[in-house]
Amino acid sequence: MIKYSRLLLNPTKLLHTLSSETIFALSSGHGKCGVAVIRVSGSNSITALKQMTSSKPLPQPRVATLRSIKDPTTNEIIDKSLVLWFPGPKSFTGEDSFELQVHGGLAVINAVLKALSAIPRCRLAEPGEFTKRAFFNGKLDLTEVEGLADLLQAETELQRKQAFLQSQGSLSKLYGKWRSTLKHCMAHIEAYIDFEETETLETGIIESVRRDIEKLAEELKAHLSNGRRGEILRNGVKTVILGEPNAGKSSLLNLLCARPAAIVTPIPGTTRDVLEVTLNIDGYPLVLADTAGLRARTEDLIEQEGIHRAIQLYHKSDFVILVINVERYLKWKQQHTNGSLKDYIVQYVDGLNLPKFFIDRKNLISTKPCVMVFNKIDLADRSEYIQGENYLSISCTKETGVDDLIRTISQHLKRICGEPSAEHPSMNQLRHREHLGACLGHLESFLAQHQRQDTVLMAEHLRKSMHQLGKLVGSVTAEELLDVIFRDFCVGK
Amino acid sequence: MIKYSRLLLNPTKLLHTLSSETIFALSSGHGKCGVAVIRVSGSNSITALKQMTSSKPLPQPRVATLRSIKDPTTNEIIDKSLVLWFPGPKSFTGEDSFELQVHGGLAVINAVLKALSAIPRCRLAEPGEFTKRAFFNGKLDLTEVEGLADLLQAETELQRKQAFLQSQGSLSKLYGKWRSTLKHCMAHIEAYIDFEETETLETGIIESVRRDIEKLAEELKAHLSNGRRGEILRNGVKTVILGEPNAGKSSLLNLLCARPAAIVTPIPGTTRDVLEVTLNIDGYPLVLADTAGLRARTEDLIEQEGIHRAIQLYHKSDFVILVINVERYLKWKQQHTNGSLKDYIVQYVDGLNLPKFFIDRKNLISTKPCVMVFNKIDLADRSEYIQGENYLSISCTKETGVDDLIRTISQHLKRICGEPSAEHPSMNQLRHREHLGACLGHLESFLAQHQRQDTVLMAEHLRKSMHQLGKLVGSVTAEELLDVIFRDFCVGK
Repeated sequence: MIKYSRLLLNPTKLLHTLSSETIFALSSGHGKCGVAVIRVSGSNSITALKQMTSSKPLPQPRVATLRSIKDPTTNEIIDKSLVLWFPGPKSFTGEDSFELQVHGGLAVINAVLKALSAIPRCRLAEPGEFTKRAFFNGKLDLTEVEGLADLLQAETELQRKQAFLQSQGSLSKLYGKWRSTLKHCMAHIEAYIDFEETETLETGIIESVRRDIEKLAEELKAHLSNGRRGEILRNGVKTVILGEPNAGKSSLLNLLCARPAAIVTPIPGTTRDVLEVTLNIDGYPLVLADTAGLRARTEDLIEQEGIHRAIQLYHKSDFVILVINVERYLKWKQQHTNGSLKDYIVQYVDGLNLPKFFIDRKNLISTKPCVMVFNKIDLADRSEYIQGENYLSISCTKETGVDDLIRTISQHLKRICGEPSAEHPSMNQLRHREHLGACLGHLESFLAQHQRQDTVLMAEHLRKSMHQLGKLVGSVTAEELLDVIFRDFCVGK
Repeated sequence: MIKYSRLLLNPTKLLHTLSSETIFALSSGHGKCGVAVIRVSGSNSITALKQMTSSKPLPQPRVATLRSIKDPTTNEIIDKSLVLWFPGPKSFTGEDSFELQVHGGLAVINAVLKALSAIPRCRLAEPGEFTKRAFFNGKLDLTEVEGLADLLQAETELQRKQAFLQSQGSLSKLYGKWRSTLKHCMAHIEAYIDFEETETLETGIIESVRRDIEKLAEELKAHLSNGRRGEILRNGVKTVILGEPNAGKSSLLNLLCARPAAIVTPIPGTTRDVLEVTLNIDGYPLVLADTAGLRARTEDLIEQEGIHRAIQLYHKSDFVILVINVERYLKWKQQHTNGSLKDYIVQYVDGLNLPKFFIDRKNLISTKPCVMVFNKIDLADRSEYIQGENYLSISCTKETGVDDLIRTISQHLKRICGEPSAEHPSMNQLRHREHLGACLGHLESFLAQHQRQDTVLMAEHLRKSMHQLGKLVGSVTAEELLDVIFRDFCVGK
């Protein structure tokens, strides 16, 4: 939790302190490459640009101009590069800024950065500092800043879409609408308090505000309950492969990872000793974890620990892939000639002993989104193939049925994450949930006070809910919060 | 060795085949970052640009213009980005080309590349293909192309300088001058042959050509003998640490690597099991290899192999750091009261048994550039400190004397590599050496024929030497050679 110890009600004050320095950074990626983009922003940009281009006149704003780039200290030419000059306030940061497109070699980049650092009042930018300046100059609100950060982090197509829409103000617009409703309501309530005794105002005014707030609370509730979709899409759909020992869970994981359609990225910095890979399935991010085989009772301590971890993963998961060994089903069928497939599945799930997980006997619907996979189908006759809406047959060794499985998984992912839309944007961060939850709490307190007719307390609750939305978009900012948000940016943005 | 099986005397023919396709690539570096530059070049650029920006009118040439970037297949907006439009022939490649500055996230970059690949006659560029087109369009000659490749590879300041000067045409100018001299001489000789019988030409003409060719041959010889400097600078100064066992060679290597001034990059892809690191000392690249301790005789097979490898490294090295244990010197001194330091050093070097390596007893000058380091000086009295022009005292454990050592190494590096200059550019590749060597051979044959007065053969030798210079700058090109040169480029340049 973030402690709002230093609340800045006047962000422009901090901006003033910040922008007395001119910042620069390599904004493009690392490694040897054709071109590297170095950005400079701040009040000393004109001096820096002139010194780096041997006092030639400034290029036309926004026109790519070829210039020799010099080290002002040694007067040596470092490189010939395209220069783009963006005078403020019509720049990304809102400040005077420029961009050098130098050759993407290590020594070239180092020489340019070194030369810039020798120019008075110029220093290397901190992570996200360009965007921070854009924020303080009113170019973006906080949700747009977060969208931008997510856009740089996005690994799949739908993560990109959600982040792009947010960076373009989809959430900002929605929250802006709510803030203007609240402002309107507050004005009415305050006017009512001021003029209550003179009775010159319409009598229906409080009733109209109540209706507006009730409607707003409903919208907030719907937005909050819908919000999980956005959060899951942003963080990846946590998926756990479950099943009894020797059902073929690891083989399935390996098979899915080997699909050329599924770009696999191992999650960096993962410390737990569970194998976890991220797959990109039709633009949705699937974070896939293998687990130990589940069984009701075991004396083996290591196995007990494995089962314990599997159950923990299951609790945190958004989606379950249940693996069933078709061989064992066929054996069971020989012993239970009256038993149906559904009977077997229900019994199988019971045997896994997963808390709060069950399959509805009639429709084979589980408590969590789940796909049931009958593995080792190569060991069964073709007549025994099991195929249904919620279950399908595969063979990890023969690699049959995998396309169907991926199609089914993809449909589940679509249902779980939804499709990001500009009209109905989804919140997607814990921070959003906290502020919106607090905001909703105050709206509900308002409605409770309304029944008691306490207009002063009603006004107070509206102010507090407004304050929460203010924090959400960053019109009210806390330095610690900003630190957290901008810390995750890369240097150079 | 390159086999010139397919010699292209008319490169424009290949160009025509090449440029019917429009190419694109990520030109900036990899990894999540603020901005990614995607370049597109070729005759279909206008169509591609229009399709990617929803048929909006083309931006003003070279003016950074903010546009929504769309996937023409799905009509979905991928990103908002700066677009730069460079109509040919005033572009890097000489063709119509444009550049998108999109947000540097994985999903954004992938979506843009995917969208571009769906546009008719557009495909991903091969490594160096943009530069290859610039070459075929006469924007650069081969030495400039090589300079550009080196500029992207340069890791230290002086490598950058040499590469930058070459990319700006320093070698090109020199070789151009020589080619024009040769052309002039050829014209004279051919005129002489044509008009020999009519005797209308000045009689002194052959003599004047001989003088020009003699002068040219001298210049070539000087350039060739000076060329090692450029090659060493380009490839890094191969340095070997030699000494008897337990002299402190590995400690010295570790100490040098730990210096903050020396940026250390382990050489990627090195397969031999010798520890080799690259240090950046005052802008010079030092490729430092540790070796096994040397001694004249050993029965140990593994030690024999270590010594064998050390001697191999020594033969390939440009610079030697000789480590001497000061403790053993002091012990020797007690036994040889009349012996001088020089005596000890000469005896020490003899004991190492290095073929063709000796120290001149009088001046302590060695056959290879060499610095002698007395290590473990902390174990000696201050009065015993050894300091001289070619030798110095250090302590790896106490870290004393290291600054002096680095200063001395830096002076050696300066002598070995020289300072790259625009007026006296150094060749720096085996390829240059081969063509220039062959060219010089033909000039010498010319001079030999001159004594025999065979004007037809003389003309033939001039033509052949001209051909070698043609290959050097790429006016005569072999496809295989081009493949080799452009293969080392990164994609996107």
